Amino acid sequence: MIRIGIFGYGNLGKGVECAIQQNPDMILAGVFTRRDPGEVKTLTNAPVYKIEDAVNMANEIDVMILCGGSATDLPEQTPQLAKLFNVVDSFDTHARIPEHFANVDDVAVQSGKTAIISVGWDPGMFSLNRLYAGAVLPEGKDYTFWGKGVSQGHSDAIRRVEGVADARQYTVPVQEALDAVRSGANPELTTRQKHTRECFVVAKEGADLAKIENEIVNMPNYFADYDTTVTFISQEELDKNHKGIPHGGFVIRSGKTGINKENNHIIEYSLKLDSNPEFTSSVLVAYARAAYRMNKMGMVGCKTVFDVPPAYLSAFDGAYLRKTLL
Amino acid sequence: MIRIGIFGYGNLGKGVECAIQQNPDMILAGVFTRRDPGEVKTLTNAPVYKIEDAVNMANEIDVMILCGGSATDLPEQTPQLAKLFNVVDSFDTHARIPEHFANVDDVAVQSGKTAIISVGWDPGMFSLNRLYAGAVLPEGKDYTFWGKGVSQGHSDAIRRVEGVADARQYTVPVQEALDAVRSGANPELTTRQKHTRECFVVAKEGADLAKIENEIVNMPNYFADYDTTVTFISQEELDKNHKGIPHGGFVIRSGKTGINKENNHIIEYSLKLDSNPEFTSSVLVAYARAAYRMNKMGMVGCKTVFDVPPAYLSAFDGAYLRKTLL
Repeated sequence: MIRIGIFGYGNLGKGVECAIQQNPDMILAGVFTRRDPGEVKTLTNAPVYKIEDAVNMANEIDVMILCGGSATDLPEQTPQLAKLFNVVDSFDTHARIPEHFANVDDVAVQSGKTAIISVGWDPGMFSLNRLYAGAVLPEGKDYTFWGKGVSQGHSDAIRRVEGVADARQYTVPVQEALDAVRSGANPELTTRQKHTRECFVVAKEGADLAKIENEIVNMPNYFADYDTTVTFISQEELDKNHKGIPHGGFVIRSGKTGINKENNHIIEYSLKLDSNPEFTSSVLVAYARAAYRMNKMGMVGCKTVFDVPPAYLSAFDGAYLRKTLL
Repeated sequence: MIRIGIFGYGNLGKGVECAIQQNPDMILAGVFTRRDPGEVKTLTNAPVYKIEDAVNMANEIDVMILCGGSATDLPEQTPQLAKLFNVVDSFDTHARIPEHFANVDDVAVQSGKTAIISVGWDPGMFSLNRLYAGAVLPEGKDYTFWGKGVSQGHSDAIRRVEGVADARQYTVPVQEALDAVRSGANPELTTRQKHTRECFVVAKEGADLAKIENEIVNMPNYFADYDTTVTFISQEELDKNHKGIPHGGFVIRSGKTGINKENNHIIEYSLKLDSNPEFTSSVLVAYARAAYRMNKMGMVGCKTVFDVPPAYLSAFDGAYLRKTLL
């Protein structure tokens, strides 16, 4: 049995707790929280500890899954915990991955632990598909589309607009752009041509709706470069119809082969997820298995999904996989 | 530079020759053929040798890519050549993979070579996607659909029917079945519900068309379990409209997460290939790079796509991959 620790108990941590139940070779050794453990009730009655207690549990946990945020939690926590544990995180600030990798690698090499960072679906499964497709079709072009799905960051940005009580933002890939890519035309697509942004906004009583809408659609970085629609709805409607955290997207590579590049090929990977955090958690748990095995084989230091032999993710052995899945 | 040998020069071998040109870290050291080398003209003026000459070229070739057939060539050739070379093959008789693996492993472990078998898209990229999706969503169901594409084996079977001059058979996935799977309904699908078979047949002059059609649609193993359509066309039309070797398909996993399994997720991988052999060749070439690297790292014996860390397939180094693709 692989003994898993969950470090941070929000949506992601709860998702990990659920996913462990689907993997009979794993048990949940404990949940670590910043809150008062006595106040935290887990979904499966797993034991809850203060985060400070983790340092005393190095012998009771095989892999610690970090479930904090990329902005401030993981840059600090992953290197810290890699001193004592094999760790897996979902660090997703793409631009800062090289720096995070270097920080974690320094520690993990020294401690002899295995750390797998940036695990999830993007970065994660989408990255893997970009890598495989690019290696197989070197002369081609990659496209990543996101959605339809909820962007937490964009929803938060809308909530900070004056007069807004609540909001939910969906990122939506543009069908015409998807079709053009799938046709093998290798189009050059602008930000605006790839995605639209749909905002469902609950205004505070008496707020100036036109002003809110104007402020949203012109917000730099978040909305100004997109075709954005704003729909005002009631809090009841938001709670009823926009409660879920769905997401997904598409990674498509279009490439040529043949002595005169006369043949075109389309490789497409897509996800349609009812729950973004639960799917991410499921990926984290599979990579926790890999971290455990890689450490047993002496493969220490910082790794990413690019470094992990696929078989290490599966609960089944090589002979069974070859017989049933190959 | 990785020096590649091509063993067998049919459609697959030619595809490998083309693919090597897209990979600047590789050179084609030689093509090995059963035919008289003087009669074989390669697409890129690569040197051509008799297959018997291969044994003398162990120092001039880093990876031998085997481009023969799975029925009789590869079961004999892959173990034979793994005595002297790192090898990659596309052995695709799913039921005999465990036996082939064992035979190749025996030799490769002893010779200290790296052999990667069953490389291509199914087995190959499709297998990988079945493995990844199953590891991430353990509670779910896998579906593989093939097509639309030409089945060489079924086309050959039709050509053996009395009165048939030529034929081309397409395997076509049933749209309703694909839609049902994508909906998350996890349907149980029979062979007939998943694929149809479209046959384009050139009859010999004076042949009994009704008899030919009847014999095709009732042919056990090949057609009897499918809804099969037979269309008689002229040789000219076959040559004009059915000359290509397109193929492709879909691997879909539908799985549940959540404490009450309340959330559904769909993972879909699809290929749309203008040329089945050229795409397979492109996969073989990427795995030749991996075989070369794994051997340098002492990872000897028989391997499959399940054992190969994804990064080994890419011409780029780890830091670059993390920065650009993760």
